[in-house]
Formats: sequence, structure tokens, C-alpha cells
Amino acid sequence: MANITKKVSWSSRADDSNATGEGTPLINGSEPLGYSRQLSGGSIFQIGRVSTVDMDEEMTSDEDSLRGRPKEITHNEKLLSLKYESLDYDNSENQLFLEEERRMSYIGFRCLEISRWVVCGLIGLLTGLIACFIDILVDQLAGLKYRVVKENIEKFTTVGGLSISLILWAVLNSAFVMVGAIIVAFFEPIAGGSGIPQIKCYLNGVKIPRVVRLKTLLVKVAGVICSVAGGLAVGKEGPMIHSGAVVAAGISQGRSTSLKRDFKIFEYFRRDTEKRDFVSAGAAAGVSAAFGAPVGGVLFSLEEAASYWNQMLTWRIFFASMISTFTLNVFLSVYSKKPGELSNPGLINFGRFESNSLEYNLYEIPIFIGMGAIGGLLGALFNVLNYWLTIFRIRYIHRPCLQVMEAMLVAAVTATVSFTMIYFSNDCQPLGPDQAEEYPLQLFCADGEYNSMATTFFNTPERSVRSLFHNPPGSYNPLTLGMFTLTYFFLACWTYGLAVSAGVFIPSLLIGAAWGRLIGILLPSISSSSSTWADPGKYALIGAAAQLGGIVRMTLSLTVIMIEATGNVTYGLPIMLVLMTAKIVGDYFEEGLYDIHIKLQSVPFVHSEPPATSHWLTAREVMSSPVTCFNRIERVGTIVDLLSNTSTNHNGFPVVMNNAAGDEPAKLCGLILRSQLIVLLKHKVFVELARSKLTRRKLQLKDFRDAYPRFPPIQSIHVSQDERECMMDLTEFMNPTPYTVPQETSLPRVYKLFRALGLRHLVVVDDSNRVVGLVTRKDLARYHLGKHGLEELQLAQT
Amino acid sequence: MANITKKVSWSSRADDSNATGEGTPLINGSEPLGYSRQLSGGSIFQIGRVSTVDMDEEMTSDEDSLRGRPKEITHNEKLLSLKYESLDYDNSENQLFLEEERRMSYIGFRCLEISRWVVCGLIGLLTGLIACFIDILVDQLAGLKYRVVKENIEKFTTVGGLSISLILWAVLNSAFVMVGAIIVAFFEPIAGGSGIPQIKCYLNGVKIPRVVRLKTLLVKVAGVICSVAGGLAVGKEGPMIHSGAVVAAGISQGRSTSLKRDFKIFEYFRRDTEKRDFVSAGAAAGVSAAFGAPVGGVLFSLEEAASYWNQMLTWRIFFASMISTFTLNVFLSVYSKKPGELSNPGLINFGRFESNSLEYNLYEIPIFIGMGAIGGLLGALFNVLNYWLTIFRIRYIHRPCLQVMEAMLVAAVTATVSFTMIYFSNDCQPLGPDQAEEYPLQLFCADGEYNSMATTFFNTPERSVRSLFHNPPGSYNPLTLGMFTLTYFFLACWTYGLAVSAGVFIPSLLIGAAWGRLIGILLPSISSSSSTWADPGKYALIGAAAQLGGIVRMTLSLTVIMIEATGNVTYGLPIMLVLMTAKIVGDYFEEGLYDIHIKLQSVPFVHSEPPATSHWLTAREVMSSPVTCFNRIERVGTIVDLLSNTSTNHNGFPVVMNNAAGDEPAKLCGLILRSQLIVLLKHKVFVELARSKLTRRKLQLKDFRDAYPRFPPIQSIHVSQDERECMMDLTEFMNPTPYTVPQETSLPRVYKLFRALGLRHLVVVDDSNRVVGLVTRKDLARYHLGKHGLEELQLAQT
Repeated sequence: MANITKKVSWSSRADDSNATGEGTPLINGSEPLGYSRQLSGGSIFQIGRVSTVDMDEEMTSDEDSLRGRPKEITHNEKLLSLKYESLDYDNSENQLFLEEERRMSYIGFRCLEISRWVVCGLIGLLTGLIACFIDILVDQLAGLKYRVVKENIEKFTTVGGLSISLILWAVLNSAFVMVGAIIVAFFEPIAGGSGIPQIKCYLNGVKIPRVVRLKTLLVKVAGVICSVAGGLAVGKEGPMIHSGAVVAAGISQGRSTSLKRDFKIFEYFRRDTEKRDFVSAGAAAGVSAAFGAPVGGVLFSLEEAASYWNQMLTWRIFFASMISTFTLNVFLSVYSKKPGELSNPGLINFGRFESNSLEYNLYEIPIFIGMGAIGGLLGALFNVLNYWLTIFRIRYIHRPCLQVMEAMLVAAVTATVSFTMIYFSNDCQPLGPDQAEEYPLQLFCADGEYNSMATTFFNTPERSVRSLFHNPPGSYNPLTLGMFTLTYFFLACWTYGLAVSAGVFIPSLLIGAAWGRLIGILLPSISSSSSTWADPGKYALIGAAAQLGGIVRMTLSLTVIMIEATGNVTYGLPIMLVLMTAKIVGDYFEEGLYDIHIKLQSVPFVHSEPPATSHWLTAREVMSSPVTCFNRIERVGTIVDLLSNTSTNHNGFPVVMNNAAGDEPAKLCGLILRSQLIVLLKHKVFVELARSKLTRRKLQLKDFRDAYPRFPPIQSIHVSQDERECMMDLTEFMNPTPYTVPQETSLPRVYKLFRALGLRHLVVVDDSNRVVGLVTRKDLARYHLGKHGLEELQLAQT
Repeated sequence: MANITKKVSWSSRADDSNATGEGTPLINGSEPLGYSRQLSGGSIFQIGRVSTVDMDEEMTSDEDSLRGRPKEITHNEKLLSLKYESLDYDNSENQLFLEEERRMSYIGFRCLEISRWVVCGLIGLLTGLIACFIDILVDQLAGLKYRVVKENIEKFTTVGGLSISLILWAVLNSAFVMVGAIIVAFFEPIAGGSGIPQIKCYLNGVKIPRVVRLKTLLVKVAGVICSVAGGLAVGKEGPMIHSGAVVAAGISQGRSTSLKRDFKIFEYFRRDTEKRDFVSAGAAAGVSAAFGAPVGGVLFSLEEAASYWNQMLTWRIFFASMISTFTLNVFLSVYSKKPGELSNPGLINFGRFESNSLEYNLYEIPIFIGMGAIGGLLGALFNVLNYWLTIFRIRYIHRPCLQVMEAMLVAAVTATVSFTMIYFSNDCQPLGPDQAEEYPLQLFCADGEYNSMATTFFNTPERSVRSLFHNPPGSYNPLTLGMFTLTYFFLACWTYGLAVSAGVFIPSLLIGAAWGRLIGILLPSISSSSSTWADPGKYALIGAAAQLGGIVRMTLSLTVIMIEATGNVTYGLPIMLVLMTAKIVGDYFEEGLYDIHIKLQSVPFVHSEPPATSHWLTAREVMSSPVTCFNRIERVGTIVDLLSNTSTNHNGFPVVMNNAAGDEPAKLCGLILRSQLIVLLKHKVFVELARSKLTRRKLQLKDFRDAYPRFPPIQSIHVSQDERECMMDLTEFMNPTPYTVPQETSLPRVYKLFRALGLRHLVVVDDSNRVVGLVTRKDLARYHLGKHGLEELQLAQT
């Protein structure tokens, strides 16, 4: 099993007459299984681990065990993987669909609209509850750990054996992390990481297998509790976005395929178009619960998802966000024994920034911009290091047990480093009466004092961030902050990408807040008047924004999230300037962290705008050609053969008038999807030639909905030799009005149409409406702007 | 001149073989002038006034005097006017355009991008400065007025002649209002009102003549200062949105057509696509300056405008908004002699809502929702009254002098009513040391006290709103508030629609805050425990939101604007619930105020979604047919004749392969616009048949840009008889890849394509790509959901 991975790539489309649709080798049947397993080498996002994930969510239903796991996986980032499918954001307006829509009365549409609102309300509610659950459990576990370690320290400090405490601490942390890593690595690798790249891809229109399943949610929630309680340099905010998305995908379908329960509600929503809308709402609700930022949540969803602005949809997304933060707020207020005091709108709470104490002056703006540049630089460094680390992980750490071991190692190292730093730091602060810290540790400090380094490490990261923002000047000594920044930076970088559920938002904020506060402390010493720089807290805030912006490179939504989290609009402009600077500086060196991980997985991600210099290209050059077409009335055997052809795996087929001549292009009259054909074959909707027409039950839209989204693979459908000779009339089921473009259309124009309407297949026709090609997501995602102008990525099966 | 208006309407498109393009009777030349004047009867938005506005911004350049003014203008709201043109949000990607794009290097695109940012920064800066200018001038004038009246009262109260003070006050107010009304009514009627409906239409893609001109801006700014200083029940916030839009349209073009100055910069931006983007930014900057709500501004622009979500554009819009509020803040802080204290982010400032004092409890939410319902009801009442009033104005008050007189009457009545109410009110409040009111009037109160009614009327409305939100409990007596609500409601309703520049936001907030506070005062008396309802200020806030929502019916953006104006995220959920309730309740009775005014003007407004039950319709039923097409190489005479045909006035012409047979539809090969043809004719780009080909200068994109946006009318172009026989080759100038749909496409599908891409013309083709029809804005805007299902509006020339 030395190096059995096989990379299938094409240097150009011309030599591949099959590269028409969006291809996934559908080889879950009986045929070339061993080969297929090797093709699916790199798992999805849970990098470096051969996945239990089948390559195609739609076509597979069973999950069988792992076999044929390669030891080393070659990797090339200049590839686009063909294994990802697209979502259909464009309704297939076939006759069945139109009939249903036409039957529906105005009242019917009103009821649908109301049920959409109800679903969004439920999404918000459940997402809020999940956030609450995570928060409370983490809080309890952190308290437990603190008590155990404190007792231990108190017992052993007296006899001088601090190393026992260290070992206890490290073991406790590693145990938590081990549990978290095991469930992720062995049960659901897609639940690893923050989940934001996956949700970005899903909202962009890429179907990431298993990303919105119930099992993923369970593992995610349990995993994030373990990793945060395990003291890793991680946050629980990113995973909330993923959790919200899963909740949304689940509720909106009114059934659980995993649990095999169908509640017979919301059946209208069982298609990609509606589901994606709800997933947007879920992601927004997640952001909202994480940061107490409902508007930021909406903007996050829009920034990542909705190319087509829809007013009612946005309003519903906002509703879900509001309910989510409100639910969290109410339950946390009860938990913290102050019911009704709604001051915890999010998992992370920046605390109250009163305008008086933290006002900024005009002359501080250049300083803020400078800090933005630092954030951009540090962020780029973080991303580069993480990129190398990820490549290393893809190559060498792809067995689940190795992954668990790495996670445990990181946990142990984190504990050791923390302890060492606490040991060597002598930053003692008086234990005031209005003590903000919940877990003060005395350690080597005098009575009535506490060790501030220990506090920073022992606290949940959220509390540390808040302390850095709000503790009065003089709470931290510069050396502590400097050391903390340095170690936490590398720890966080090492941690991101481990096989644990965890986010990078909070570590970023923490790193940034630390060096920001450091700058705030150092500034007075280099300036003449010390009074004006009184509060280092605002520099901590700016530093946090800069660092986070430098790493994730989000723009509008992040600004709004930060504004909402501070609860103070006054900081809008500085935060925006800082994030802009961080993005510009950072982009100069390296992409954002999420984009790096998306790229490393070769996901065909369609960005919001085409590359600037792509006017040279036209649809003719971009499209895949020749296209496999079906006749309007087609032989069943032909259809089965084409669908079973594992080397092509098209998912959309233009339907043409008369394809008699064979090679001659024929006039377009519709478009049909693989999934639709599968349902037709399954229900044997054949026009039988031998006998007269059968009086078979007319196929309903419901049959398609019931099969959604896990359509059976073609191999599971048995078609007899007799049936192969029957004909199938596609007229009723095809979309008779697919969007088309002429061959001469420029790439930006194709791109705009494709993205604005969320298309999956765009038919290219000549001047007589004859099919000459098909443009899919991969054809557009291939082009990107490199250092030397427009570059073209290669397509690969892996 | 009794009743000479002529209404041209079609009951259906079938009997009108000419209703192809978007028609504007181009009759500014010599031909049927008298007739055309009468056709242009109802002016644009400045209702009830025969406009000096030419019907078509593009085609006219001179503004001649008014003639043929009808006394009464018939009106029917079930009409769609054909006089409005569309904007082209889709680039005409002809050869010239593609050549330019292809010539441009990556650096070139970067420079373009940078200049877009620069333009947005300038837009923000200038909008902020204008807001600042208005604010300071209004403040100065209000102070002046207060001093004069106060002196006068003090002088005459002693001798008992209060009526002299009243007269002085009324005269002062009327004088201000007269100036404001004269400049609006006589010089620029489009500058009347808040400007929000006009900007909504513009962003929707309707070209409203003269709406973004320099003269409009000047009149708007001067007008709003006069009307606010004149004590009318108006605000200066709405006009800011219009001002921002004009600033944006002006700066982005790098020239002023009115001033005949061309700075030779930003020439790339001289087309509808780019201009509309900048106008979005300008509108957002206006909202931002008005309410200190940069995020709200962005959402306003998106809600009203951008159907196609573009990340970079949104980010730029946000930048403009930020700069705008920041500029205002800095300059106002200097003006208020507290430089650097950035606490005035907007023209209206709700004051600081600290979370502690104003926290809400769960059981208050039903009360808030109830208040939302009240707001919806009152809003609907307001809108119905204003609707009747507007109809009355359209019918009878359409002469400028009548309009000025009405405005002065309203000013005088406002003053009288105020004075009467002050006279009969004896609501005296102690004059505290930390006096919030700037203009306390003693009147009939004891020494050391002031009359709170007088304060409410004398203050600028912004200050009154703030007082209602923040004054301690007991500052107002319930009777005062009740009376105030009642009178101000009717005054505000009467005022909206006058020929003055003024907004309705602040009056709405004021009415709502008054009855909201009233509820807040009355609640303790009907409940058992009085302590929990301590602060009526929060009810004032909720009431203000409810009333504003009930009148304007904005959703997401208004929620965010309110959140940002209060500076407190905690209020998000209640405000959202209140706005939702107000909208649902209000919509049951009557549309929003802006929509009413848009509808009364018969503007073809394309809403964000098609009517729910419109799946019955297909492109075949919706489209205009037959279509006037041109051949790829066409006789000049034919083109001139078609363009000159005043009864058709098409603006877009499909170009076909071979139109020899005449009636037979021909294959589509492009689309050309009237404006492009005009430029071609002007530059005489003819292929002369007699002689050999001329070595004429090749036409550049620059020639089209120089003519933009005021293309000359066809009548101004002289074409000799010889030239008529020449041919014109359209190949290079037409858009070779217009978007098309098959005839069977359902209306929702057509609608989605049209709206998502911001189209102006959508060609309908048969299955061989032959032109069979054309869908334009009016064809889609015609359908709307009435009480009895889908209704179809008629088209009219007026």
C-alpha cells in the first residue's frame, strides 16, 4: 500500500469528451470498489484522514467501513476536485411543479409563508438552546477542573511538588480532548474544525457530504464541549454557526432521514432552493447566538450566501437571528440567577463599552490603522504556518488514531506551556473586592493577591478577552502580555485543524487583545503626555479586531459583529478601518484561513465576482463539450447505460428535440437532472411498447420530494432486459425553460447569470438554439487570478 | 382649457401593435408640441403641479416655460404610466466595450477599484458636510426665531397682548415656509417632499427625470432649511437620503452637465450600471448621516435597490456610510464646542439609552406588540388621510402659486394651533439646574418653571423626540401628551405632500413617542405595582418605532436604523416585533406611505418578488408583440423613421439576422438601444453605398460616454435625403448576447431573471431563437395582487 493514490487530472477539457456534467464517480455499487476507495482519499475538510464519508451524499445510503487507506496522500492545490456536487438553487419548473403551483390558492401561499416564519422561529429557538447548553456545560466543566486543580495545588504547593499538579492538569485536559478527538476522528470527521468553511461552501452552492446531518450536530456539540473544557486554544463560537445550519436543515425538512422519522410537515420545503434559504437562516442564528449579533448574523449569511437579494428572506433570517440571541439571553439569565436581565446576548460578550471612558480621538486613527497592518501581518503569518501544518497533516497524519494522539499531544503541551509560564511569571495583582475574575489562583503570590498569568490561562478564553478589554489600567504587566501573545499565537495555530470541533474566533480575539493591550500600555511611555492614553482597553479591542480580521478576512459582517458585540456604534469607523487595513495587508501575503482550507480541499467555490481580466474568455471556451443529451422520448436502456457510466457521471442532461443524426447538435427543449431520472426509473414510468399504455399511477411531485435528498444510486435500481427496450417520456419531468446563453457570451456575463440565479447547469446554445455545451460550477471555478494573470486550475477526480 | 387632458390607455396589449419598448413620447422637437405638453400633465411626485419637467431626461436638453396647464387633472391609480424610462443595470457588452475591457490590464482594474473607493469616500464626506450645513443653519435660525419671539412675548405679556406675539410667530414661520415653497414650486418641483419615493424608484431602476441633478440638490437643501425653520411638522432626515443620492450621482460622473464642466475623470463610470451603484452608496450615506446609522444605511440601500448582492459593492457602500456619519460627527462636535467628542453620529440622535434604566421584561413583550398594532392602525389612518389629500391636491392644487399659498396656510395654522395649545395648557415644570431644554419658555408659569407644551412645540422636533425618550418620569402630563399627539398627527398628515422639501420620519417618531409615553404613564395606573413601569421613556421609544413603522412600512433597515440610533442592541427584539406587527396590521388596511405616492404617480415599480399566484402566466402572455427589429445592416432612413415615430418610442430594438420576409420572425443576433442609435446617427457612422467606404474616425466608447446621460432627441439630428439611403452596420455596437427566455417560461421565472440582473429589455424567443416578443419593466410591473387575485394594470401615456 505504498503509494496507491492515483491522481486523475486533465490538462485541458478538449481531450476529455466526457467532462460534461458535474462528475462524481458513482462507484458505490458492486463494480470497481477498491479503486473508488482510493480515489476518495482526501477526506472533506477533516484533512489528512481517509473518510468514512461516501463521496456522494445523494446517491449513497449505507455507510460501510474503512478499507484501503493510503499511508500518504499526494496533494496539489492547483486542482479542482470533481467529487463535489452542486446544489440546485434554481427550481426545476417542470410540468408537475407548475401544476402544483397553479393549483395553489392565494391562501395556500400565505400558509406557506407563515410556515416559513414558524420554521425560522424554531431554528432560532433551537440554535439558542444549543448555544445555551454548550455554554452551561463548558462552564460547569471549567469550574470542576478549576476546583480539582486548585485543591491539588494547595495540597502540593506546601510540600513543594508542583509537578504533580502539572501532571494532573495535563492529564485532565488530555482526557477531555481525547474524548473530543475520538468522536470526531472515528465517528464524524466532518464535525471537526469550526465548520465555517463547510458552511461557506454549502451556502455557496457546493454540496459537502454529510455536513448538515443530525450525527454531525451531535458530534459537533459534544466535541466542542470537550475541546473547550480541555483547555485548548479554541473557541466555541465557530461551531455554533455549523450547529445552527444543521438545525435549520433538519427542522425545515420536517423529517429526519437518520432517525427514519417523517413528520409529514414542511414537505414543500424538500428541495435545495428552500433548504438553502433555511440553512442561511440557521447560520445567521448561529452567529447571532455566538456573538449576540443578530444583524451581523444576517450580514454573514448574505456575504457568504445569497447572491440574489430577497427582502422577505432577509427579514426571516433576521427573525431567526433575533429569536436565537433572545433565547440564549433568557436562558443564560436564568442560569446566572438574574432572570430577566438580558445582558448576555451571545456566547462571547465583550462587556459594556461605555462611550465616556473609551472615546477615541482623531489623532488615534493612524495608530489604529497601524494596528490593523500589524494584525494583517500577524494574521498572514498565522495562515502561512497553518497552511504548512495542514499540508503536513494531509500527508502524514491521516489515521484517526494518529489524529487523536496529535490532539492529546497538543492538549498536554498547552497545559505544560501554560504551567511553565505561570511558574516563571511573577505578575501578582491585588485581589480586589469587586473581583472580576472568577477563578483567581494565588500560587506564588502574596496573600490577598492573585497570579494574573494563571488567571489568563485558567479562565475560559471568553472571560480572558473580556478582562483584557475592561480590566483597569495596570492589571497586566507588559511582559506577561508579550509572553502570552507569543505562546498563545503558536498554540492556536497548531490547534486549528486538529481533529476536534473548535473555532478560531476566540483565540484570534485573545491574541489580538493581548498585543493590543500591550500597545496600549507601551504608548504612554513613548509619548509625552500620559493622560490621553489612559485606557489600554480600547487598544485591546482594536488589536482583537485587527488580529481576527487578519486571520479570517471577513469584512462587512465582521465589522457589524464587532460593533454589536461591543454594543457601541461609536467604534464603527475605527473597527472598519482596522479590518480594511488588516485585510489589504493580509491579502498581500496569503489568503484568509477559511479560503486556504477550502482551496486545500479543491472545492469548486464560485466567488462573488469573476476574475477581473476574464473578458477574453467566452462561453465557447469555458463550456464542457460535447454534451450528453437525451431525446424527449428516450429508450430506457440508453438512459440506464448513461447513468451507469462511471467515467462520466453527469448530473444534468439537456433534452433535445430530435437527436437522430447523433453527432449533429439538436435543438434544446429542456433539462433533466440525474436525480429526476433515478426517481423515474425507480417508479418505472415507462411507455411500454409491446402492450398498450399502462394505467400506472401518475407520478407526483411528492415522489421526488420523498426521495430528496438521498436519491438511490443507479446501481440499486434493477431494470430488466424487457424494460430496457421501453421508452420513457421526459416531457412532463424536464425543466422546459432552462436558462441559456449564446456561445459568444463573455465569461463575466456567464458568471453573473450563473451566480445571480444560483444555477447548477447553464446550457450554451448556438444561434439556432441547438445545444453546443454546458457550463457548470467547475467550469467557472476553474479560473482565478494568480500572480501572473488569469490562471486555470486543473480538474481531478480526487 | 376646461378639461383637455387626454388619457391614453390600452385595455390589453393585443390591440396595440406598437407597445413594444418602453415608450416616452419624444415630442420635444417641433412636431406636436401642444399635445405633448398636455400629455405630460401630472408632474413627477410633486403632485398636483404641472411640471416644467420635460418628460424625458435623456432626450431633452433645454427647459422651456410652462404652457397649456390644465386646470384639473384626471387621475386613475389603476394605470401604469409609459412616460418613465428604465435604467440599464445590465452592461451592453458590445464589441467596443469588450475591446476596452480586454485592453485593460490587471493594474487598470485595480486603479478602477481604487477610484471607486475614492468616489465613495468623497460621497460620504460631502453628504456628511451637507447634513452638517443643514443642521447648523436650522439650529441658528431656530435660535434666532426663539429669541425674537421670546423678547416679543416678554414685552407684550406684560401689557396683555399675546395675540401680537402669535401673529409675529405665525408671520415669521410663514415667511420661512414661503421661501421654501417658492423655490420648490417654481424652480424644481422634484425637490419637494422627502425624496425617498423618488430614490426608491431610481434604485429600483426607474429613471425619474431630473431627480439627481445639481439644481435639485440646491433647492432641496435650501427648501429643507426653510421648512424646518418655518416650524412645520417635518423632519430634515428624509431629504438627506435624496441629497446623498444627488451627491453620488454628481461626483461619480466626474463632471456637471448643468455647470458644463467636465473634469475628465471617472469617465469609466458614465453608464447606468456604475452610476446606480454609486447612487446606492449616496442614499446609504444619507441615511447614515441622518440617523447615525451606517449599517442601517447599507441595509436601506440593499432593501430598496440591489437585487444582485455584490460583496465589494456592499463594502464600499458601508465605507461611504461610515465616512458620512464620521464627518458629520466631527464637524458637529466642533460646532458644539466639544471637538473630538464624537457623540453626534446623526442629525437625529436618540440620546444614550443605558441598559440599566431601560431594561425590559418578558411580560412587557405583549404590551409592545399591542403598541405595534396601535402604530399600524394609526399609520394606516395617516396614510389613508394623506392619500385622499394627495388625490385632492392632484385635482385642484396644481398651480405653483396655489401650492405656495397652501404651504403658507399650513405654516400659519401650525403656528396658531401650537399657540392655542400652549395658551390652554398649564403644564408647568420646574426649571432644573441640569436643564435639558435649550429653549424654556416661562409664559404663564410661575417663576422658576417653564411651560412644557411650549417647549415641545418650540424645540426642533429632534430635541422633542429626545426629551420624550429621556426626560425623567413626570416631565409631561398625560393631557398635554394626548393633545399633542392629536394635533401633531393631523398637522403632520396635512404637511406631507406640500410643495416643500421635508421628511416624514421625525413627525412620525414624535407622534409615536408622544402616545408611547402616554401609554407608559397610564400603564402604572391600571396595574397594581407601579414600580415596574417606572420609566415611560422606553414606551416612548417603542411607540415611536410603532408609529414610524406603521407609516413607512420599512422592515429590516428600519429595525437596524432604530437599533443604531438608540445605540443599544438589547432593544433589537422588541423593536423588531413592533415593526413587524405594525407592518402586518397596517398592510391589512393600506399600503405604506411611500408606496402610495409611487402608485399615485403610476410608476412601473418592479417589486422584489412576483405576485404569488402568477404561475399561470408565461412569457408569451406577458411580452409585448410584435417587436420592431432592425437588421444587422440597416438602412439609415428606416432607423430614423422608426426612432422618430412618436407613437411607439421604443428604447431597445432586437437586431436580427435577416428580416427580409417582413412578418416572419427572424433569428436574434443582438440588441441595440435607442441611445446608441442616436449617437451613431449623430456621428454619421454610415456605410455609404455610392462611394467607397469612408475613412471616418472609428467610433469610441468615449463618444457614448460623452453623450451620457442626456442623449439628444432624434429630432435634433439632421439626416439628409442622401444619407437616408446609406446603410448602417450595427454589428459592432449592438449587444451580441442579450439575455433571452423561451416563450413558455413562467412569469415568476421571467421576473426572477429580470430583477436579479436588473434588466431593461428581455427578448423572448421561440425554439429556433427567433424573436417573438420583448419583456420590459412595464410588462412585469403591470401584474399585482389585488383583493380578487391577480390584477392587471392598464398602461397609459400620462
